[in-house]
Amino acid sequence: KMLRRVLCTVLFVGALPSLAEMSQGHISVVLLGATGDLAKKYLWQGLFQLYMDQVSSGHSFTFHGAALTALEPGQRLMFDVLKKLACPPDEPPNRCAVLKDQFLKLSQYHQLKTAENYTVLNREIETLLHQEGLKEAGRIFYFSVPPFAYTEIARHINSSCRPPPGAWLRVVLEKPFGHDLESAQQLAAELRSFFREEEMYRVDHYLGKQAVAHILPFRDQNRQFLDPIWNRHHVERVEIVLKETVDAKGRSSFYEQYGVIRDVLQNHLTEALMFLTMELPANVSSAEEVLQGKLQAFQSLRGLEKNSAVLGQYQAYASQVQEELQKAPGYISTTPTFAGVLIHSDSLRWEGVPFLLTSGKALDERVGYVRVLFKNRAYCTQSETLRDAGHSQCKAKQIIFYIGHGALNTPAVLVSRNLFRPVMPEGSWREAVGQSDLHIFGQPLTDYYMYSPVKERDAYSVLISNIYHGRKDFFITTENLLASWGFWTPLLDSISHQPLRLYPGGMENQHLLDFEMVSGEVAFTLAEPVELLNPNRLMPSDYRTIQTKFRQSPLVSAWAEDLISQLASDIEKTASRTVARSGQFHLALSGGSSPVVLFQRLARHHYAFPWKHTHIWLVDERCVPLSDTESNFFSLHNHLLQSVRVPYFNVHPMPVHLNQRLCVEEDRGTELYAKEIVALVANASFDLVVLGVGTDGHTASLFPQSENGLRGAQSVVLTESPVKPHQRMSLSLPLINKARQVFVLVLGKGKHDITTLLSRVGYEPRKWPVSGVSPSSGQLVWYVDYEALLG
Amino acid sequence: KMLRRVLCTVLFVGALPSLAEMSQGHISVVLLGATGDLAKKYLWQGLFQLYMDQVSSGHSFTFHGAALTALEPGQRLMFDVLKKLACPPDEPPNRCAVLKDQFLKLSQYHQLKTAENYTVLNREIETLLHQEGLKEAGRIFYFSVPPFAYTEIARHINSSCRPPPGAWLRVVLEKPFGHDLESAQQLAAELRSFFREEEMYRVDHYLGKQAVAHILPFRDQNRQFLDPIWNRHHVERVEIVLKETVDAKGRSSFYEQYGVIRDVLQNHLTEALMFLTMELPANVSSAEEVLQGKLQAFQSLRGLEKNSAVLGQYQAYASQVQEELQKAPGYISTTPTFAGVLIHSDSLRWEGVPFLLTSGKALDERVGYVRVLFKNRAYCTQSETLRDAGHSQCKAKQIIFYIGHGALNTPAVLVSRNLFRPVMPEGSWREAVGQSDLHIFGQPLTDYYMYSPVKERDAYSVLISNIYHGRKDFFITTENLLASWGFWTPLLDSISHQPLRLYPGGMENQHLLDFEMVSGEVAFTLAEPVELLNPNRLMPSDYRTIQTKFRQSPLVSAWAEDLISQLASDIEKTASRTVARSGQFHLALSGGSSPVVLFQRLARHHYAFPWKHTHIWLVDERCVPLSDTESNFFSLHNHLLQSVRVPYFNVHPMPVHLNQRLCVEEDRGTELYAKEIVALVANASFDLVVLGVGTDGHTASLFPQSENGLRGAQSVVLTESPVKPHQRMSLSLPLINKARQVFVLVLGKGKHDITTLLSRVGYEPRKWPVSGVSPSSGQLVWYVDYEALLG
Repeated sequence: KMLRRVLCTVLFVGALPSLAEMSQGHISVVLLGATGDLAKKYLWQGLFQLYMDQVSSGHSFTFHGAALTALEPGQRLMFDVLKKLACPPDEPPNRCAVLKDQFLKLSQYHQLKTAENYTVLNREIETLLHQEGLKEAGRIFYFSVPPFAYTEIARHINSSCRPPPGAWLRVVLEKPFGHDLESAQQLAAELRSFFREEEMYRVDHYLGKQAVAHILPFRDQNRQFLDPIWNRHHVERVEIVLKETVDAKGRSSFYEQYGVIRDVLQNHLTEALMFLTMELPANVSSAEEVLQGKLQAFQSLRGLEKNSAVLGQYQAYASQVQEELQKAPGYISTTPTFAGVLIHSDSLRWEGVPFLLTSGKALDERVGYVRVLFKNRAYCTQSETLRDAGHSQCKAKQIIFYIGHGALNTPAVLVSRNLFRPVMPEGSWREAVGQSDLHIFGQPLTDYYMYSPVKERDAYSVLISNIYHGRKDFFITTENLLASWGFWTPLLDSISHQPLRLYPGGMENQHLLDFEMVSGEVAFTLAEPVELLNPNRLMPSDYRTIQTKFRQSPLVSAWAEDLISQLASDIEKTASRTVARSGQFHLALSGGSSPVVLFQRLARHHYAFPWKHTHIWLVDERCVPLSDTESNFFSLHNHLLQSVRVPYFNVHPMPVHLNQRLCVEEDRGTELYAKEIVALVANASFDLVVLGVGTDGHTASLFPQSENGLRGAQSVVLTESPVKPHQRMSLSLPLINKARQVFVLVLGKGKHDITTLLSRVGYEPRKWPVSGVSPSSGQLVWYVDYEALLG
Repeated sequence: KMLRRVLCTVLFVGALPSLAEMSQGHISVVLLGATGDLAKKYLWQGLFQLYMDQVSSGHSFTFHGAALTALEPGQRLMFDVLKKLACPPDEPPNRCAVLKDQFLKLSQYHQLKTAENYTVLNREIETLLHQEGLKEAGRIFYFSVPPFAYTEIARHINSSCRPPPGAWLRVVLEKPFGHDLESAQQLAAELRSFFREEEMYRVDHYLGKQAVAHILPFRDQNRQFLDPIWNRHHVERVEIVLKETVDAKGRSSFYEQYGVIRDVLQNHLTEALMFLTMELPANVSSAEEVLQGKLQAFQSLRGLEKNSAVLGQYQAYASQVQEELQKAPGYISTTPTFAGVLIHSDSLRWEGVPFLLTSGKALDERVGYVRVLFKNRAYCTQSETLRDAGHSQCKAKQIIFYIGHGALNTPAVLVSRNLFRPVMPEGSWREAVGQSDLHIFGQPLTDYYMYSPVKERDAYSVLISNIYHGRKDFFITTENLLASWGFWTPLLDSISHQPLRLYPGGMENQHLLDFEMVSGEVAFTLAEPVELLNPNRLMPSDYRTIQTKFRQSPLVSAWAEDLISQLASDIEKTASRTVARSGQFHLALSGGSSPVVLFQRLARHHYAFPWKHTHIWLVDERCVPLSDTESNFFSLHNHLLQSVRVPYFNVHPMPVHLNQRLCVEEDRGTELYAKEIVALVANASFDLVVLGVGTDGHTASLFPQSENGLRGAQSVVLTESPVKPHQRMSLSLPLINKARQVFVLVLGKGKHDITTLLSRVGYEPRKWPVSGVSPSSGQLVWYVDYEALLG
């Protein structure tokens, strides 16, 4: 009945569609949480906008608000919201009034609480469609509810509210989608049991921000200009920034669990990062191509470490949490409200370019932007003061996707005039003239070509329109979500005990939150002023050398990450000293998983390492081809050698692969390696050997219960491992013990038992080969992390 | 008689020395060219300053002006100059008047023309010393004469004017010291036959400029601040600039022969470059240590190529030359009056940092400076407009050695306040307050700590004082000079036919001379406006593909440098295409000298080359260890592999060194290599083989008069070269001919005969192995430079 009335009304309004055009079918939109904050603020307005835009599309619509509230009060609440729906300024008031009236008539409230409620809703939709003789096009279920409610609602929709075959189902989900990789995986698995991937529309409302949504189209439409410069040779740095002036007051229960990284960086800023760094697909509106591009871009990101981020918390936060969550006085929160994170991509295109992601609450201004700053490669011969103000190549070159607020107070795309005049889609972006006296990013606004949207649109109305159009590239797929959590979770774990810098908030922050990059890490530029230190605050000293010995030798112990950085520094020091003394440094490295982090650390943070004079030897090797992923050398190559400049001649992989076969005795690989050592290493005494320890007490590839390599004159031996691949080549214990220095690295809880055992036993290499490591005239140092040492 | 009078006068002036203090001995200064321009303008004043400064030093002095002019007129001319000597502002007028009077009495004119004249001068000095009972300390001969006169004067001094044993001889020489490496070597050899190295003081008056002279002391005194940042990780770029407003009018006869690079860059700017880039010696005032540091720094400089420089000529220059040198109308000069040069050092410290040297006549302002710009590594969280103006780390960080003139109009050292407060020697430099509204290098002067000399001193008076003190570190040794010419001569040769950009001169130049760096080269940023093109000007098109064939195959021909860059681009194109098709690219490269430039080109200019997917094979190898400097692989490694990222597994040196011996048949190196090829290269068909040609027609290591490797199934062979080292390993002709593409590179006049011969003969591999190169199903392209092709 209701619908028929609408169709009649429609016929009286000039530009509206005829009945014939309605043949596209009917769409039912169900908004769950119809009386909540988000619905009130954005979603109903977005749905109304959708209706205004699509009323002539050939689709007919009904809108179903739903909540736990009973019918009567729920209806009242919802219609209070609907009555306040605004007419956009670009809509003729007449037309809008008519459409708003129709929209209200097409909207209905439902209590959705029990399984029965869902069945009823489904029946009502079916009945309506049947009565009106309409074909069903599809159903949209918009989840504007807390995440704990997801599973149950999903179950009900799946079992009772699926449209008939031929019509589509789209469920729209709002973040948070978990709080780390594991919880996100769990939630994803649950949802997957109710919906197919193509049915789920996960919202990141930043993808609806016009400037963010235009990054890919901009890259696409300006390929001719960007192709030569969109890379590490031309880009100096990229800043992705979302600053807020508000604080977390009133939202503590959410914020205290999440913090700024989960709230803003993991989703909004990361999505912008992906749009910038991904390889441009041939078709930028293909959701599949965009997704593949993003996933590849995620894979290229270098893993984050503790020192990849600087973290802060505004001073009033702790007391707000204490009050809102009824914590005990003196409660200490470790939730960051400010973060600056340095991200590197190891792709050929971006290697070495710093991407700085910054966000915080209680800052000096509200603004969001993505800024790509290009390198200045020009020298201007004319003196600055005598230069014509025109297109000087010496002025900064930048491209800015201005998300909103701030000095411009509008979404915008800015391109330095000395870069190029961009191609912009005429219908949706127009050249804008800014205030001539405004300076932005160090330059007068007149230095830029500036474009702003023809129609400024709220992110939610953009997204709702994209849900209607099935534009999945505007939403976060499960793979995308998990890739992002996979990237952020290690950082979140490693900073959970990090000290936070306290800041007063607002303009008083001044330079307190400025930070700078130092060899691949970030640090605040200013020392924290003493008066800001909260005296109640726990500041764990995160690096300690436990001043004791292990098996009568010096012991260095710390949390794993600090231990690795200490070990890497110690190796560099040894290397520099040795090269200064003898001109070369012979370093023997072990395989296995623990050294990988060490290799990465050495590759990324030790620019002054004398690689040119370093010889790299293998302590042990698996009998597989060198380029096999199981090969120790392969791992060493991937994580270290390919990033540093060790001369080819100085690299000495073990000859496990001779005459097209692996570790055959008669190919004499062990003799070959032994001869190479004798030929190059003075007295066959390595300057440094780095070893690991297995849970069974093995070291190098010397395994328990075998005499092989424990004594005798043979310096390189073939051995047998209890685990695959069984065949190994290894330096012998006597050769290892000739070294000038031996460092043994032991990491992780899994090594706690063997560590404890080793601390008690004596020299028993037949049982525990590592107990035989005892350099005859060199020095032995143990590097054992807290988890291995203390369990 | 004269001297005695002086000594008496001296006693009457308060602060002047007693006779006892005079025991240091006597110094005779002979100024050759005493009435010339330089003497008039700077040298006499410098000598007078020396006298004022050193009158109490214990040394006594006489000053001998000399020239070709006869005694009478010469004397008159010289004393006209002496009478005009100025008293410096910081000298009490009374004392100065007395000292000037004494200086005049101590000065004498001599005609020095014949051998006899020199003998007489020597006798006069000896007589005077004898009469006064003075011990001789030393003699200074200052050559302020044209370079063609050097040899004769030097011969006379050496044979007639050497002081007795125990006293020193110092001869001071003014540039030009040759106009290229060869002429400089010749002049140096001549001078060396008359003087010992330690007797020669070659003047580069920039070393007397106070700001330049302070570079090394500054680095030394500020080691604590500079040590961590004086390197490629922190320095963004360095600019060394000397701009002049004057043009070359009136000096055409000199300038037309030299041009801006020889006049300014080879000497003044290069010396400043050395002070910046050299490793800091322990003792910065040790001439020997400084020299060694400089020589090492020269060795690290990457060779310049044609495109390392942009060159210009002011429009009026050609007509000035035409007029002054009576050239025919329409005379075209190829002498640059403006140059911008990009220099790279390959040292660990500076690798990748651009050093821009710029100088020119007829520019918009007169100024000289050395500017070190540091990278901005900071992100400032506070908005620009709300930032406290203080020590923001986001402002530019720079250190400037301001040589003089320009906006500051004084020598100065400037250090950004957000960098550090420098240590400056209190006696000689003082903190200066500049005009607060002055902007310099993009920032208000108040952003810098600024220091200026306590006493501003003319470069020549600084240098004359340093000659007196025997401070050889302020002068250019022969080694230093030749190192500099060795560095600049290849560029001077390669640009001798380069087109020059015409510029109007003065402020009208605007952006016409701005230039920018693009992948290791420089180019003007703006296209040259048509109206500036001189229609009479010869603009040789410097790259041509001669549209013809060579031995029935495509031929690419050009001048060597252009040919190499074309070949490198073609290799990259082939590589990218092949990787796109098959995922990998198998490239076989030849040894020898021609490929070195190709390797360097590939290493430095081809950032997008798919190295990660490229396999590198050797076409041939000498039977020496791989790390021997004679090894082809060693050269390939040094010039290419160590600069790019080819995975270790993809590098395939020839196994010439097995079982600790070289190319022994029974070690089966050839079989090993053949097997490796079969295992990795599909159909043993290389994607690209790059060959050279010997003057005897050999290619790879396949030599004439031997069947070895010309046919048969063996794909890798041992061969014998007519030249050392005789033993070689080589791919065979049949294997080469299986390649998908073969490029043959032929460079240089020396190859003209064989090129001509090859253009005529048919398939005769037994006589000329290269004639057998004929890929069975692949493509052959010849890259032959003009010299090889046209002789």
